[in-house]
Amino acid sequence: MVETIKDVEGLDIELEENILRKNQEIAEENRRILDENGILCIDFMGSVGAGKTSVINCLIGALKKKYRIGVVGGDLTTKIDAEILASHGVPVVQINTGRECHLDANLVSRALMRFNLNDIDLLFIENVGNVICPAEFPLGAHRRVAVVSVIESPYLIVKHPLTFASVDVVVLNKVDLAEVVGANLKGFENEILKINPSASVVKMSAKTGNGVKELIDALGI
Amino acid sequence: MVETIKDVEGLDIELEENILRKNQEIAEENRRILDENGILCIDFMGSVGAGKTSVINCLIGALKKKYRIGVVGGDLTTKIDAEILASHGVPVVQINTGRECHLDANLVSRALMRFNLNDIDLLFIENVGNVICPAEFPLGAHRRVAVVSVIESPYLIVKHPLTFASVDVVVLNKVDLAEVVGANLKGFENEILKINPSASVVKMSAKTGNGVKELIDALGI
Repeated sequence: MVETIKDVEGLDIELEENILRKNQEIAEENRRILDENGILCIDFMGSVGAGKTSVINCLIGALKKKYRIGVVGGDLTTKIDAEILASHGVPVVQINTGRECHLDANLVSRALMRFNLNDIDLLFIENVGNVICPAEFPLGAHRRVAVVSVIESPYLIVKHPLTFASVDVVVLNKVDLAEVVGANLKGFENEILKINPSASVVKMSAKTGNGVKELIDALGI
Repeated sequence: MVETIKDVEGLDIELEENILRKNQEIAEENRRILDENGILCIDFMGSVGAGKTSVINCLIGALKKKYRIGVVGGDLTTKIDAEILASHGVPVVQINTGRECHLDANLVSRALMRFNLNDIDLLFIENVGNVICPAEFPLGAHRRVAVVSVIESPYLIVKHPLTFASVDVVVLNKVDLAEVVGANLKGFENEILKINPSASVVKMSAKTGNGVKELIDALGI
Protein backbone atom coordinates (compact mmCIF):
# COMPACT_ATOMS: atom_id res chain seq x y z
CA MET A 1 0.00 0.00 0.00
CA VAL A 2 3.10 2.25 0.02
CA GLU A 3 4.05 3.60 -3.36
CA THR A 4 7.54 5.07 -3.41
CA ILE A 5 8.77 7.89 -5.61
CA LYS A 6 12.56 7.98 -5.83
CA ASP A 7 15.07 9.94 -7.85
CA VAL A 8 12.63 12.78 -8.26
CA GLU A 9 14.05 16.23 -8.58
CA GLY A 10 13.22 18.83 -6.02
CA LEU A 11 13.17 22.41 -7.23
CA ASP A 12 16.67 23.20 -6.05
CA ILE A 13 18.50 19.98 -6.78
CA GLU A 14 19.95 20.98 -10.16
CA LEU A 15 21.80 23.89 -8.59
CA GLU A 16 23.67 21.80 -6.12
CA GLU A 17 26.61 20.51 -8.07
CA ASN A 18 28.21 23.91 -8.65
CA ILE A 19 27.63 24.95 -5.07
CA LEU A 20 29.19 21.80 -3.68
CA ARG A 21 32.24 22.17 -5.94
CA LYS A 22 32.70 25.80 -4.87
CA ASN A 23 32.27 24.78 -1.23
CA GLN A 24 34.95 22.11 -1.59
CA GLU A 25 37.44 24.64 -2.99
CA ILE A 26 36.89 27.06 -0.13
CA ALA A 27 37.03 24.22 2.42
CA GLU A 28 40.47 23.26 1.10
CA GLU A 29 41.58 26.88 1.42
CA ASN A 30 40.25 26.96 5.01
CA ARG A 31 42.22 23.80 5.79
CA ARG A 32 45.38 25.37 4.39
CA ILE A 33 44.92 28.44 6.61
CA LEU A 34 44.24 26.28 9.67
CA ASP A 35 47.33 24.13 9.00
CA GLU A 36 49.58 27.14 8.44
CA ASN A 37 48.53 28.41 11.84
CA GLY A 38 48.87 25.05 13.59
CA ILE A 39 45.17 24.94 14.50
CA LEU A 40 43.27 21.68 14.98
CA CYS A 41 39.67 22.28 13.89
CA ILE A 42 36.65 20.12 14.76
CA ASP A 43 33.15 20.48 13.26
CA PHE A 44 30.18 19.36 15.41
CA MET A 45 26.90 18.43 13.71
CA GLY A 46 23.66 17.11 15.15
CA SER A 47 19.95 17.62 15.49
CA VAL A 48 18.58 20.47 17.56
CA GLY A 49 18.50 19.30 21.18
CA ALA A 50 21.15 16.60 20.73
CA GLY A 51 23.51 18.56 22.95
CA LYS A 52 26.19 19.97 20.65
CA THR A 53 26.66 23.09 22.79
CA SER A 54 26.86 21.04 26.00
CA VAL A 55 29.42 18.67 24.50
CA ILE A 56 31.62 21.57 23.32
CA ASN A 57 31.12 23.21 26.72
CA CYS A 58 32.46 20.06 28.40
CA LEU A 59 35.46 19.93 26.05
CA ILE A 60 36.35 23.57 26.68
CA GLY A 61 36.12 23.01 30.43
CA ALA A 62 38.46 20.02 30.19
CA LEU A 63 40.96 21.56 27.74
CA LYS A 64 41.10 25.30 28.29
CA LYS A 65 44.12 25.21 30.60
CA LYS A 66 46.13 23.21 28.10
CA TYR A 67 45.12 24.81 24.79
CA ARG A 68 44.07 28.21 23.48
CA ILE A 69 40.56 27.57 22.20
CA GLY A 70 38.28 29.41 19.79
CA VAL A 71 34.69 28.70 18.76
CA VAL A 72 32.65 29.36 15.62
CA GLY A 73 28.93 29.01 16.34
CA GLY A 74 26.30 28.62 13.64
CA ASP A 75 22.71 29.46 14.48
CA LEU A 76 19.75 30.84 12.54
CA THR A 77 19.09 33.95 14.59
CA THR A 78 20.02 33.54 18.25
CA LYS A 79 23.29 33.65 20.18
CA ILE A 80 22.36 31.97 23.45
CA ASP A 81 24.59 28.96 22.69
CA ALA A 82 27.50 31.23 21.77
CA GLU A 83 27.17 33.12 25.03
CA ILE A 84 27.26 29.90 27.07
CA LEU A 85 30.56 28.96 25.41
CA ALA A 86 32.00 32.50 25.62
CA SER A 87 31.50 32.41 29.40
CA HIS A 88 34.71 30.34 29.52
CA GLY A 89 36.57 33.45 28.35
CA VAL A 90 37.32 32.00 24.91
CA PRO A 91 36.77 34.00 21.71
CA VAL A 92 33.52 33.05 19.96
CA VAL A 93 32.45 34.14 16.50
CA GLN A 94 28.72 33.64 16.02
CA ILE A 95 27.40 33.26 12.48
CA ASN A 96 23.69 33.97 12.27
CA THR A 97 22.68 32.24 9.07
CA GLY A 98 19.19 33.74 8.97
CA ARG A 99 17.28 31.18 6.92
CA GLU A 100 20.19 28.93 6.01
CA CYS A 101 20.12 25.47 7.52
CA HIS A 102 23.85 24.76 7.54
CA LEU A 103 27.24 26.44 7.70
CA ASP A 104 29.27 26.38 4.51
CA ALA A 105 32.98 26.84 3.88
CA ASN A 106 32.50 30.43 2.75
CA LEU A 107 30.80 31.41 6.01
CA VAL A 108 33.57 29.73 8.01
CA SER A 109 36.20 31.49 5.90
CA ARG A 110 34.59 34.80 6.88
CA ALA A 111 34.58 33.76 10.52
CA LEU A 112 38.27 32.76 10.45
CA MET A 113 39.16 36.36 9.50
CA ARG A 114 37.71 37.56 12.81
CA PHE A 115 40.15 35.57 14.95
CA ASN A 116 43.76 36.28 15.71
CA LEU A 117 44.76 32.84 14.40
CA ASN A 118 48.19 32.98 16.06
CA ASP A 119 46.41 32.85 19.39
CA ILE A 120 44.39 29.67 18.71
CA ASP A 121 45.44 26.02 19.05
CA LEU A 122 42.03 24.40 18.88
CA LEU A 123 38.95 25.61 17.00
CA PHE A 124 35.51 24.12 17.62
CA ILE A 125 32.78 24.75 15.07
CA GLU A 126 29.18 24.23 16.18
CA ASN A 127 27.12 23.71 13.06
CA VAL A 128 23.46 24.71 12.68
CA GLY A 129 21.17 22.24 14.47
CA ASN A 130 19.87 19.74 12.00
CA VAL A 131 21.09 16.34 11.03
CA ILE A 132 20.62 16.57 7.26
CA CYS A 133 21.98 19.68 5.58
CA PRO A 134 25.45 20.20 7.12
CA ALA A 135 26.67 16.77 5.95
CA GLU A 136 27.25 17.83 2.36
CA PHE A 137 29.20 20.95 3.24
CA PRO A 138 32.68 20.18 4.57
CA LEU A 139 34.13 23.29 6.18
CA GLY A 140 37.84 22.51 6.14
CA ALA A 141 37.84 21.01 9.65
CA HIS A 142 40.22 18.16 10.49
CA ARG A 143 37.53 16.10 12.22
CA ARG A 144 33.77 15.91 11.98
CA VAL A 145 31.63 14.80 14.90
CA ALA A 146 27.93 13.94 15.04
CA VAL A 147 26.18 14.35 18.38
CA VAL A 148 23.08 12.18 18.94
CA SER A 149 20.87 12.05 22.00
CA VAL A 150 20.10 8.52 23.18
CA ILE A 151 16.56 9.72 23.90
CA GLU A 152 16.05 9.32 20.15
CA SER A 153 15.83 5.90 18.53
CA PRO A 154 18.58 4.16 16.51
CA TYR A 155 16.26 4.80 13.58
CA LEU A 156 17.62 8.38 13.59
CA ILE A 157 20.93 6.89 12.39
CA VAL A 158 19.25 4.76 9.68
CA LYS A 159 17.39 7.81 8.40
CA HIS A 160 20.54 9.91 7.90
CA PRO A 161 23.20 7.77 6.24
CA LEU A 162 24.94 10.72 4.59
CA THR A 163 25.62 12.43 7.92
CA PHE A 164 26.85 9.35 9.74
CA ALA A 165 29.03 8.28 6.81
CA SER A 166 30.74 11.69 6.84
CA VAL A 167 31.98 11.75 10.45
CA ASP A 168 35.00 10.49 12.36
CA VAL A 169 33.33 10.35 15.76
CA VAL A 170 29.72 9.91 16.95
CA VAL A 171 28.89 11.09 20.46
CA LEU A 172 25.96 9.21 22.02
CA ASN A 173 24.96 11.94 24.44
CA LYS A 174 22.60 11.99 27.46
CA VAL A 175 23.53 8.46 28.57
CA ASP A 176 22.57 9.61 32.08
CA LEU A 177 18.95 9.34 30.82
CA ALA A 178 19.45 6.00 29.05
CA GLU A 179 17.85 3.91 31.77
CA VAL A 180 14.84 6.19 32.35
CA VAL A 181 13.92 6.23 28.64
CA GLY A 182 14.92 2.61 27.98
CA ALA A 183 17.50 3.63 25.36
CA ASN A 184 18.90 0.95 23.06
CA LEU A 185 22.61 1.88 23.16
CA LYS A 186 23.74 -1.27 21.39
CA GLY A 187 21.21 -0.54 18.61
CA PHE A 188 22.69 2.93 18.08
CA GLU A 189 26.20 1.52 17.92
CA ASN A 190 25.23 -1.23 15.46
CA GLU A 191 23.50 1.16 13.08
CA ILE A 192 26.41 3.63 13.17
CA LEU A 193 28.99 0.93 12.44
CA LYS A 194 26.87 -0.51 9.62
CA ILE A 195 27.03 2.86 7.84
CA ASN A 196 30.53 3.83 8.94
CA PRO A 197 32.67 0.94 10.24
CA SER A 198 35.63 3.20 11.04
CA ALA A 199 33.68 5.69 13.18
CA SER A 200 34.57 5.99 16.88
CA VAL A 201 31.45 5.83 19.05
CA VAL A 202 31.72 7.62 22.40
CA LYS A 203 29.05 7.28 25.09
CA MET A 204 28.83 10.51 27.02
CA SER A 205 26.78 12.65 29.33
CA ALA A 206 27.62 16.27 28.67
CA LYS A 207 25.51 17.04 31.75
CA THR A 208 27.64 15.01 34.19
CA GLY A 209 30.89 15.22 32.21
CA ASN A 210 31.04 11.46 31.97
CA GLY A 211 32.86 10.32 28.81
CA VAL A 212 34.64 13.59 28.02
CA LYS A 213 38.09 11.95 28.41
CA GLU A 214 37.10 9.22 25.96
CA LEU A 215 35.92 11.90 23.52
CA ILE A 216 39.22 13.78 23.78
CA ASP A 217 41.05 10.52 23.02
CA ALA A 218 38.77 9.70 20.09
CA LEU A 219 39.38 13.16 18.64
CA GLY A 220 43.16 12.75 18.97
CA ILE A 221 43.50 16.04 20.86
CA MET B 1 33.42 38.01 23.93
CA VAL B 2 30.88 36.93 21.28
CA GLU B 3 31.33 38.59 17.92
CA THR B 4 28.34 38.16 15.68
CA ILE B 5 28.35 38.00 11.89
CA LYS B 6 24.90 38.65 10.43
CA ASP B 7 23.53 39.14 6.95
CA VAL B 8 26.36 37.12 5.45
CA GLU B 9 25.64 35.22 2.31
CA GLY B 10 25.97 31.48 2.28
CA LEU B 11 26.97 29.92 -1.01
CA ASP B 12 23.44 29.04 -2.02
CA ILE B 13 21.49 32.06 -0.80
CA GLU B 14 21.40 33.99 -4.07
CA LEU B 15 19.62 31.16 -5.81
CA GLU B 16 16.74 31.10 -3.42
CA GLU B 17 14.48 33.83 -4.67
CA ASN B 18 13.67 32.19 -7.99
CA ILE B 19 13.16 28.81 -6.38
CA LEU B 20 10.79 30.19 -3.78
CA ARG B 21 8.77 32.03 -6.43
CA LYS B 22 8.51 28.87 -8.54
CA ASN B 23 7.56 26.88 -5.44
CA GLN B 24 4.80 29.35 -4.63
CA GLU B 25 3.31 29.04 -8.13
CA ILE B 26 3.22 25.25 -7.96
CA ALA B 27 1.82 25.36 -4.40
CA GLU B 28 -1.08 27.48 -5.68
CA GLU B 29 -1.69 24.96 -8.45
CA ASN B 30 -1.65 22.12 -5.87
CA ARG B 31 -4.20 24.00 -3.78
CA ARG B 32 -6.45 24.44 -6.80
CA ILE B 33 -6.32 20.69 -7.52
CA LEU B 34 -7.03 19.85 -3.87
CA ASP B 35 -9.97 22.26 -3.77
CA GLU B 36 -11.44 20.95 -7.02
CA ASN B 37 -11.42 17.49 -5.50
CA GLY B 38 -12.82 18.57 -2.14
CA ILE B 39 -9.70 17.43 -0.28
CA LEU B 40 -8.58 19.01 2.99
CA CYS B 41 -4.77 18.83 3.11
CA ILE B 42 -2.58 19.22 6.19
CA ASP B 43 1.24 19.51 6.20
CA PHE B 44 3.11 18.29 9.31
CA MET B 45 6.59 19.66 10.02
CA GLY B 46 8.93 19.03 12.93
CA SER B 47 12.36 17.88 14.01
CA VAL B 48 13.37 14.25 13.69
CA GLY B 49 12.05 12.42 16.75
CA ALA B 50 9.34 14.99 17.54
CA GLY B 51 6.68 12.40 16.69
CA LYS B 52 5.18 13.51 13.37
CA THR B 53 4.48 9.93 12.29
CA SER B 54 2.92 9.05 15.65
CA VAL B 55 0.68 12.12 15.59
CA ILE B 56 -0.53 11.35 12.05
CA ASN B 57 -0.97 7.72 13.10
CA CYS B 58 -3.25 8.85 15.95
CA LEU B 59 -5.27 11.07 13.61
CA ILE B 60 -5.77 8.28 11.08
CA GLY B 61 -6.91 5.94 13.85
CA ALA B 62 -9.45 8.50 15.07
CA LEU B 63 -10.73 9.58 11.63
CA LYS B 64 -10.49 6.67 9.23
CA LYS B 65 -14.08 5.55 9.71
CA LYS B 66 -15.42 9.01 8.94
CA TYR B 67 -13.13 10.13 6.10
CA ARG B 68 -11.21 8.60 3.21
CA ILE B 69 -7.61 9.41 4.08
CA GLY B 70 -4.39 9.55 2.05
CA VAL B 71 -0.82 10.22 3.13
CA VAL B 72 2.23 11.73 1.42
CA GLY B 73 5.41 10.89 3.35
CA GLY B 74 8.70 12.70 2.85
CA ASP B 75 11.88 10.99 3.97
CA LEU B 76 15.49 11.00 2.79
CA THR B 77 15.87 7.31 2.02
CA THR B 78 13.72 5.11 4.24
CA LYS B 79 10.04 4.16 4.24
CA ILE B 80 9.57 2.78 7.75
CA ASP B 81 7.31 5.72 8.70
CA ALA B 82 5.25 5.26 5.54
CA GLU B 83 4.73 1.58 6.30
CA ILE B 84 3.50 2.34 9.81
CA LEU B 85 0.84 4.65 8.37
CA ALA B 86 -0.04 2.32 5.48
CA SER B 87 -0.86 -0.42 8.01
CA HIS B 88 -4.20 1.40 8.51
CA GLY B 89 -5.08 0.40 4.94
CA VAL B 90 -4.86 3.97 3.63
CA PRO B 91 -2.96 4.83 0.43
CA VAL B 92 0.51 6.24 1.14
CA VAL B 93 2.84 7.81 -1.40
CA GLN B 94 6.39 7.95 -0.10
CA ILE B 95 8.74 10.55 -1.53
CA ASN B 96 12.38 9.66 -0.94
CA THR B 97 14.12 12.98 -1.32
CA GLY B 98 17.64 11.52 -1.28
CA ARG B 99 19.73 14.44 -0.08
CA GLU B 100 16.98 17.04 0.01
CA CYS B 101 16.02 18.28 3.45
CA HIS B 102 12.44 19.29 2.73
CA LEU B 103 9.49 18.58 0.50
CA ASP B 104 8.64 21.21 -2.08
CA ALA B 105 5.49 21.91 -4.04
CA ASN B 106 6.84 20.20 -7.15
CA LEU B 107 7.48 16.95 -5.30
CA VAL B 108 3.98 17.07 -3.81
CA SER B 109 2.50 17.80 -7.23
CA ARG B 110 4.15 14.60 -8.48
CA ALA B 111 2.78 12.68 -5.51
CA LEU B 112 -0.77 13.98 -6.06
CA MET B 113 -0.76 12.37 -9.52
CA ARG B 114 -0.34 8.96 -7.89
CA PHE B 115 -3.63 9.14 -5.97
CA ASN B 116 -7.13 8.66 -7.23
CA LEU B 117 -8.11 12.07 -5.89
CA ASN B 118 -11.84 11.33 -6.11
CA ASP B 119 -11.34 8.75 -3.39
CA ILE B 120 -9.69 11.07 -0.86
CA ASP B 121 -11.31 13.46 1.64
CA LEU B 122 -8.32 14.17 3.84
CA LEU B 123 -4.64 14.23 2.85
CA PHE B 124 -1.88 14.27 5.45
CA ILE B 125 1.62 15.27 4.36
CA GLU B 126 4.50 14.28 6.60
CA ASN B 127 7.40 16.56 5.76
CA VAL B 128 11.08 15.60 6.04
CA GLY B 129 12.24 15.66 9.66
CA ASN B 130 13.92 18.93 10.38
CA VAL B 131 12.60 22.11 11.82
CA ILE B 132 14.32 24.61 9.51
CA CYS B 133 14.07 23.89 5.79
CA PRO B 134 10.41 22.95 5.20
CA ALA B 135 9.16 26.29 6.55
CA GLU B 136 9.96 28.26 3.41
CA PHE B 137 8.33 25.79 1.05
CA PRO B 138 4.54 25.89 1.26
CA LEU B 139 3.12 22.84 -0.48
CA GLY B 140 -0.44 23.98 -1.16
CA ALA B 141 -1.83 22.47 2.05
CA HIS B 142 -4.76 24.16 3.82
CA ARG B 143 -3.13 23.91 7.24
CA ARG B 144 0.41 23.65 8.50
CA VAL B 145 1.26 21.98 11.78
CA ALA B 146 4.53 21.91 13.71
CA VAL B 147 5.11 18.96 16.06
CA VAL B 148 7.47 19.57 18.98
CA SER B 149 8.51 17.12 21.68
CA VAL B 150 8.27 18.56 25.19
CA ILE B 151 11.50 16.68 25.95
CA GLU B 152 13.18 19.57 24.13
CA SER B 153 13.41 23.03 25.66
CA PRO B 154 11.26 26.06 24.77
CA TYR B 155 14.50 27.41 23.31
CA LEU B 156 13.77 25.17 20.27
CA ILE B 157 10.88 27.55 19.52
CA VAL B 158 13.01 30.67 19.95
CA LYS B 159 15.64 29.26 17.59
CA HIS B 160 13.19 28.65 14.72
CA PRO B 161 10.96 31.69 14.36
CA LEU B 162 10.31 31.13 10.65
CA THR B 163 8.83 27.68 11.22
CA PHE B 164 6.62 28.66 14.14
CA ALA B 165 5.42 31.81 12.40
CA SER B 166 4.32 29.74 9.39
CA VAL B 167 1.97 27.29 11.14
CA ASP B 168 -1.67 27.23 12.21
CA VAL B 169 -1.26 24.63 14.94
CA VAL B 170 1.61 23.56 17.19
CA VAL B 171 1.39 20.09 18.76
CA LEU B 172 3.32 19.80 22.03
CA ASN B 173 3.87 16.07 21.88
CA LYS B 174 5.04 13.51 24.48
CA VAL B 175 3.28 15.25 27.38
CA ASP B 176 3.17 11.81 29.03
CA LEU B 177 6.91 12.35 29.66
CA ALA B 178 6.55 15.96 30.81
CA GLU B 179 6.82 15.20 34.50
CA VAL B 180 9.76 12.78 34.21
CA VAL B 181 11.86 15.26 32.23
CA GLY B 182 10.63 18.36 34.08
CA ALA B 183 9.24 19.92 30.90
CA ASN B 184 8.32 23.60 30.95
CA LEU B 185 4.96 23.46 29.11
CA LYS B 186 4.07 27.06 29.91
CA GLY B 187 7.44 28.16 28.55
CA PHE B 188 6.75 26.40 25.23
CA GLU B 189 3.32 28.01 24.98
CA ASN B 190 4.65 31.49 25.78
CA GLU B 191 7.42 31.31 23.17
CA ILE B 192 5.04 30.01 20.49
CA LEU B 193 2.50 32.76 21.13
CA LYS B 194 5.20 35.44 21.14
CA ILE B 195 6.14 34.44 17.58
CA ASN B 196 2.66 33.53 16.39
CA PRO B 197 -0.19 34.89 18.53
CA SER B 198 -2.89 33.24 16.42
CA ALA B 199 -1.43 29.72 16.60
CA SER B 200 -3.44 26.99 18.33
CA VAL B 201 -1.29 25.07 20.81
CA VAL B 202 -2.40 21.48 21.49
CA LYS B 203 -0.86 19.39 24.26
CA MET B 204 -0.82 15.78 23.21
CA SER B 205 0.62 12.34 23.75
CA ALA B 206 0.60 10.48 20.46
CA LYS B 207 1.63 7.43 22.50
CA THR B 208 -1.48 7.39 24.72
CA GLY B 209 -3.80 9.17 22.27
CA ASN B 210 -4.42 11.90 24.80
CA GLY B 211 -5.21 15.23 23.07
CA VAL B 212 -6.12 13.85 19.65
CA LYS B 213 -9.70 15.20 19.92
CA GLU B 214 -8.35 18.66 20.71
CA LEU B 215 -6.05 18.41 17.70
CA ILE B 216 -8.93 17.44 15.40
CA ASP B 217 -10.86 20.48 16.68
CA ALA B 218 -7.87 22.79 16.23
CA LEU B 219 -7.44 21.58 12.64
CA GLY B 220 -11.13 22.22 11.89
CA ILE B 221 -11.60 18.66 10.58
